[in-house]
Amino acid sequence: MSSAATPAAPPSSALAGVFSRLAPQMDELDLFLRAQLAIFEPEIRSHAEACIDASGKRIRPALVFLTGWNDSPARPPELVRAAAVVELVHLATLVHDDIMDSAEVRRGRRTVSREIGPTAAVLLGDCLFAHALNLAAQFPTTEVCSAVSESARRVCAGEIMQTLRRGSTEITREDYWRIIELKTAELFRVSCYLGARLAGMPPGYTEAACRFGRHLGIAYQIYDDLADYFGDEERMGKTLGTDLASGKMTLPLFVLLERLPPSERDALMGEISGRLAPRLDLRMRQMGEMDVFPTVAESVERELAAAKSSLRSWNGAAPTRHLLEVADVLGSQLGALCEKS
Amino acid sequence: MSSAATPAAPPSSALAGVFSRLAPQMDELDLFLRAQLAIFEPEIRSHAEACIDASGKRIRPALVFLTGWNDSPARPPELVRAAAVVELVHLATLVHDDIMDSAEVRRGRRTVSREIGPTAAVLLGDCLFAHALNLAAQFPTTEVCSAVSESARRVCAGEIMQTLRRGSTEITREDYWRIIELKTAELFRVSCYLGARLAGMPPGYTEAACRFGRHLGIAYQIYDDLADYFGDEERMGKTLGTDLASGKMTLPLFVLLERLPPSERDALMGEISGRLAPRLDLRMRQMGEMDVFPTVAESVERELAAAKSSLRSWNGAAPTRHLLEVADVLGSQLGALCEKS
Repeated sequence: MSSAATPAAPPSSALAGVFSRLAPQMDELDLFLRAQLAIFEPEIRSHAEACIDASGKRIRPALVFLTGWNDSPARPPELVRAAAVVELVHLATLVHDDIMDSAEVRRGRRTVSREIGPTAAVLLGDCLFAHALNLAAQFPTTEVCSAVSESARRVCAGEIMQTLRRGSTEITREDYWRIIELKTAELFRVSCYLGARLAGMPPGYTEAACRFGRHLGIAYQIYDDLADYFGDEERMGKTLGTDLASGKMTLPLFVLLERLPPSERDALMGEISGRLAPRLDLRMRQMGEMDVFPTVAESVERELAAAKSSLRSWNGAAPTRHLLEVADVLGSQLGALCEKS
Repeated sequence: MSSAATPAAPPSSALAGVFSRLAPQMDELDLFLRAQLAIFEPEIRSHAEACIDASGKRIRPALVFLTGWNDSPARPPELVRAAAVVELVHLATLVHDDIMDSAEVRRGRRTVSREIGPTAAVLLGDCLFAHALNLAAQFPTTEVCSAVSESARRVCAGEIMQTLRRGSTEITREDYWRIIELKTAELFRVSCYLGARLAGMPPGYTEAACRFGRHLGIAYQIYDDLADYFGDEERMGKTLGTDLASGKMTLPLFVLLERLPPSERDALMGEISGRLAPRLDLRMRQMGEMDVFPTVAESVERELAAAKSSLRSWNGAAPTRHLLEVADVLGSQLGALCEKS
């Protein structure tokens, strides 16, 4: 069991530039999240705390803060509460994800599911989610509750679709895009929405923020799917090829499948469906030979470009440069992956 | 997969008196719940529908309607929405419960968990819960969202406590009361709260409604725990003794443990902890010999009496007689259990 003093995991070094600027907000967020622990029943407090400790880069809160950025030293305190709401929703989905994946370790710690069993972990995820909505209900109007609960439903719908299609090779590229738009881009989008709304931006501005968040979220997920085959195990702290092993169809596999000769394609489909043992080394080598990386990377770049161009209508308003920087950071992470590949 | 025309399960015959009076509201609720299906993504709609089909007696919605009762034919439409909110929260917890219990059948249908797998079932429960909160956010103020999200957190906290104590004989009677107050009485309480608030009752009146709901919920759970040993398998449509088999300490077991001679007590504790195979027939016979039934039934009656006396301050306001009748119905179900025991 971790003590209250345990700091959150440090942000990834690549994001450090943007994050160092957000240090005061992130500290406030961490204090705010830890203050919430008092609300949980004593019996479950330490487990909720372990989830907060295992919280990672806090990208979604960063989007809330950056979209709601203003250059004055006075920061709207509502942004911290909204950031906590999206982070708690995200943590709840992580707790439930780890149950489904039977994951033992997340970010170097035993998962909640491993610690208290899958049954209690389902319920702990529910508690975190319920409390996120309770915080959302502390805003003066129902707007935050409404946006966050709808987003959460869409995130879960995306994950259900993905789960029901595991091991299926009948999934189309359109299905894939729809799944990542729901399961990942939705919470990025709502984070930008909340930042813009709480900073009092006008509607057109808020819509642009939503488009930015959505494109960034899609880019982020495709990058993540690419890193599952081309990443650095040690640096990422996770095993490569888990998507193939669990029958999850992602963009690198779509591209490889299209480029393989028919007989090989059938074999790979057998591996995805679980009929055949996955041959990860072979598939990774083939991905290299068949130029899968640049094709998938192009999709990431296209989404990043779309995210950036969403902000044009802002005419350089205060948050613009920070958000553009977030997109550039993801772009350079992609570049680093490319060097390795 | 059930069709949209499938009616909800009929209410239990014992509740039929109160329910027949609520038929128009219950019909409205059913239409309202089915209309929500359009909001779910097409891929998960049929699964959400199956949950609504498997919805049982709808006691919590009944409490919303009855607490908000007025004798005029005009019914506040907000009550239907609030009833849908509490029912969806309840359905979400059922979906998650069935995963944990690895239940195959609920109310004569295959459980969602059995139908789509536990992984997707976790997410479907999340979707139902998220949508409940989204409906709650459609009220003019954040009050419903706030009350329901806090209740949901408490319900899950109660269930976590119960789960973490499965197979433990160190659980005290105080733990038991706290668990049932959270996991069951909380949603009864909030149902009465919402009915009273939405009917525009003054604060003192609402507090009395909450006390009624809380005591009724505790009575209901103890009754349910008693029925697990003294019920009629055929009529209830479920196997007896599942609490002993799953190591769940409930009031009948507390009473039996206290009355058994020391050597027998150790053996029973071994059965609860899973060290020894549960001897259900023996334990049920001993419960009969040692007068466990009347002792536990007395607790139910005490809670029912407390529920009824909570309403005294209402001075016979419109909902009073209906709520008293609900308490009486549970009292007569207890009587029926007694005849059998």
